[in-house]
Amino acid sequence: MSEEKNPIGDSDELQGQLQEIEHLLARHKLVEALTHQQNVHRQELLDDLIHKQNQNELHRKLDRMHSADVAYILEALPLEDRLLVWDMVRSEQDGEILLEVSDAVRETLIDSMDRHELVAAAESLDTDELADLVPDLPQEVVEDVFQSLTSEEREQLRAAMSYPEDTVGALMDFDMVTVREDVALEVVLRYLRRFDELPEHTDKIFVIDRNSILQGVLTLESLLINDPETDVRDVMIKDAVRFRPEDRAEEAAQAFERYDLNSAPVVDENNRVIGRITLVTVVDFIREESEAEQLANVGLREEEDIFASVWNSVRNRWAWLAINLVTAFVASRVISLFEGSIEKIVALAALMPIVAGIGGNSGNQTITMIVRAIAMGQVKSDAARRLLKKELGVALINGVLWGGLLGILAWWLYDSIQLGLVMTSAMTMNLLLAATAGVGIPLLRLRLGGDPALGSSVMITALTDSGGFFIFLGLATLFLL
Amino acid sequence: MSEEKNPIGDSDELQGQLQEIEHLLARHKLVEALTHQQNVHRQELLDDLIHKQNQNELHRKLDRMHSADVAYILEALPLEDRLLVWDMVRSEQDGEILLEVSDAVRETLIDSMDRHELVAAAESLDTDELADLVPDLPQEVVEDVFQSLTSEEREQLRAAMSYPEDTVGALMDFDMVTVREDVALEVVLRYLRRFDELPEHTDKIFVIDRNSILQGVLTLESLLINDPETDVRDVMIKDAVRFRPEDRAEEAAQAFERYDLNSAPVVDENNRVIGRITLVTVVDFIREESEAEQLANVGLREEEDIFASVWNSVRNRWAWLAINLVTAFVASRVISLFEGSIEKIVALAALMPIVAGIGGNSGNQTITMIVRAIAMGQVKSDAARRLLKKELGVALINGVLWGGLLGILAWWLYDSIQLGLVMTSAMTMNLLLAATAGVGIPLLRLRLGGDPALGSSVMITALTDSGGFFIFLGLATLFLL
Repeated sequence: MSEEKNPIGDSDELQGQLQEIEHLLARHKLVEALTHQQNVHRQELLDDLIHKQNQNELHRKLDRMHSADVAYILEALPLEDRLLVWDMVRSEQDGEILLEVSDAVRETLIDSMDRHELVAAAESLDTDELADLVPDLPQEVVEDVFQSLTSEEREQLRAAMSYPEDTVGALMDFDMVTVREDVALEVVLRYLRRFDELPEHTDKIFVIDRNSILQGVLTLESLLINDPETDVRDVMIKDAVRFRPEDRAEEAAQAFERYDLNSAPVVDENNRVIGRITLVTVVDFIREESEAEQLANVGLREEEDIFASVWNSVRNRWAWLAINLVTAFVASRVISLFEGSIEKIVALAALMPIVAGIGGNSGNQTITMIVRAIAMGQVKSDAARRLLKKELGVALINGVLWGGLLGILAWWLYDSIQLGLVMTSAMTMNLLLAATAGVGIPLLRLRLGGDPALGSSVMITALTDSGGFFIFLGLATLFLL
Repeated sequence: MSEEKNPIGDSDELQGQLQEIEHLLARHKLVEALTHQQNVHRQELLDDLIHKQNQNELHRKLDRMHSADVAYILEALPLEDRLLVWDMVRSEQDGEILLEVSDAVRETLIDSMDRHELVAAAESLDTDELADLVPDLPQEVVEDVFQSLTSEEREQLRAAMSYPEDTVGALMDFDMVTVREDVALEVVLRYLRRFDELPEHTDKIFVIDRNSILQGVLTLESLLINDPETDVRDVMIKDAVRFRPEDRAEEAAQAFERYDLNSAPVVDENNRVIGRITLVTVVDFIREESEAEQLANVGLREEEDIFASVWNSVRNRWAWLAINLVTAFVASRVISLFEGSIEKIVALAALMPIVAGIGGNSGNQTITMIVRAIAMGQVKSDAARRLLKKELGVALINGVLWGGLLGILAWWLYDSIQLGLVMTSAMTMNLLLAATAGVGIPLLRLRLGGDPALGSSVMITALTDSGGFFIFLGLATLFLL
């Protein structure tokens, strides 16, 4: 690991630094342009001097920056400026920075690097970090890097990459300090003093036996507050929370939150320590999950670089639009079944989107609530009946309340009490449909072993749209014609 | 702080424990019911014995549980069972558990406790924890608790409660270890050994002068790996990241993630240390923020206890339905402007929801992307022009692509090339409207100092619905009649 620079910390100051760099870049590009354009020699010396000064200042600024701050600057710059800055960054920082930036920006940076630079950047990383980067690297770079690893590191890399993205195995690192239980704290203290640095975020040391079997954990706290003569085994925590690499990362994240952990050992089926998972990694995971969810809600496949080309954006967004187009088309065909009725009572056309829309809103509320309860582990698939009963109750009240209000409005606007009654009944029935689907869809998907959250909003909206149109226009055809 | 119990950790095992407790509770209630009903004395002794055994087993189970695990059990039980279990929990754990459960469940638990129990529970907490609980406690309990605090604790409580919920001040605690810079590490080590325990999640010690002014931080790591003869000043980090209590919590959270912090000092305007903020608190904040956002997206005012009454659910959800009803009603009035046209070409009624719907989908994609970029600090309000240009480009491509496809479908279905052309143009125009609003709404709100995320989805959907109907039906009226 390269030596850490001082972080800027304050976000206003970070913005200020960004502006200064933008300013320097603008000057830099201006001078470059002038030199190329004029093609005269008279001013060359002076220009050159300004140019050098300017560049030096940029270099100096970037050299002093924490890699996370450089990453922030790179994210906020348009492609051309971004690559200019990237060129000026000290190459020892390259690896760290590649880890910090978003996937979309990482791609643009990697594209601009040659094989040699990429290998150098990759080699500066720990194996668990490398595992995150490898999928984005060109094949020949990966091979070069692999050659440069020790056999233990290769094994770690292979292990880290063998676990699916949403498991503890993909989040764990291999840096840890282990001690035996039969030594005194004094010995541990002396042992630690031989380190140049401890693994990042070490808050506990793992106590193992000669076969690497986990015996307990020794917190730095108990190491520090207890008499150095005490034996490790007398102050270690025997049944500390541990994880298996196959455990779902989301579950580990919940355990970290529940028990306020800062780090925990990862063990194999024989309780042998194979790695460690830290809260800092868990936080990244939580943030990424919540971002992925936000994006998935509106069908964005991935984080978009705000400077991405129009074409990249179109590709990122098309699938969702296509799905919604299909569901909208189906709803449209449902309406066209009743064109005869609409021709006779044109008010139906104006009122039908209300029935469909409110059904969608209410259904999305129900499904969000249920999906969250499932994620918190509070709902098993056998809770269906109780939840359904409650949601149907809510839907009935809302139907009578809001449906009644709209019925009165329809009656008043179109002077037809029958139309008002159809409106109220259709609203109530569509809300009941929304409640049933809002409970049913996620529980069914849970029982079938799927992710209850994925695409559930699109599904329920499709159902309440087509369903709403069908119910309202159907009732109108039955009772008003 | 009460002594920590062993956490269960594994979520399957937690589910298992929940089932066992449900089973024991069912037996418990059965025996109670029998005893009441039968009113006979013959079996009393036997029943009593079973009852006692049953209750003892429940008590034993709960006593061994980590407070976070008890909180999980309480959340997952319906009200009656929840209060039964709550009665059996050892009172020393009450305070911790009240902090762990969700707001909705906390309310049900507090309602079931008398003044004396509440005061006892509150008194078991640290002042920063107490600050989180106070808003939910009855006034007279707060007064009793306040009486029992030392004057320093009262000051801390007042300070913690004086900061708005989304600031660093509201997240900080007052537990920390401070040392002077001119002592040797040996002295610090001896000093720490006098503690019974360190503040939770201590990864660094704050180095202050005699006026409490922050001089630097000493990580436990450097305390452990360096020669004990070294002076603190030689190994401390001088310009570590620090926060002010007025700083926005979201910004602090981003800094914690950017710089991989585990804890950081909170200082006042004179750089005097007044508290500490830890990653564990930050994680809770991040999770709460992301949950609040998920709920706000579908207009749920707060987390719903899944066992809440129908009536509570209706209250939690009504405001959003009301707003959506208003926007749907407006869209309905827009349609009714064109009733004459629909009467003549009834196909318009079937096609118009497609135009409105796809506009809403596309607008929500744009707005989500922009809101996220703003939250990451990557967009300033002056970026409007560039972003607008790009989004308009995306909209144009999608309009020609998807609008063209639908135009052809409309042509084919209704055998009218003019209708197809109107469909394509209306789709394109509504997508352009969605793009403009998707960029404009959040940037305008940012410039006006509001939260760009709040309610933006409702706004853009309202606009693309009414706008889409108006554009499509307007074009149809102009060109088809």
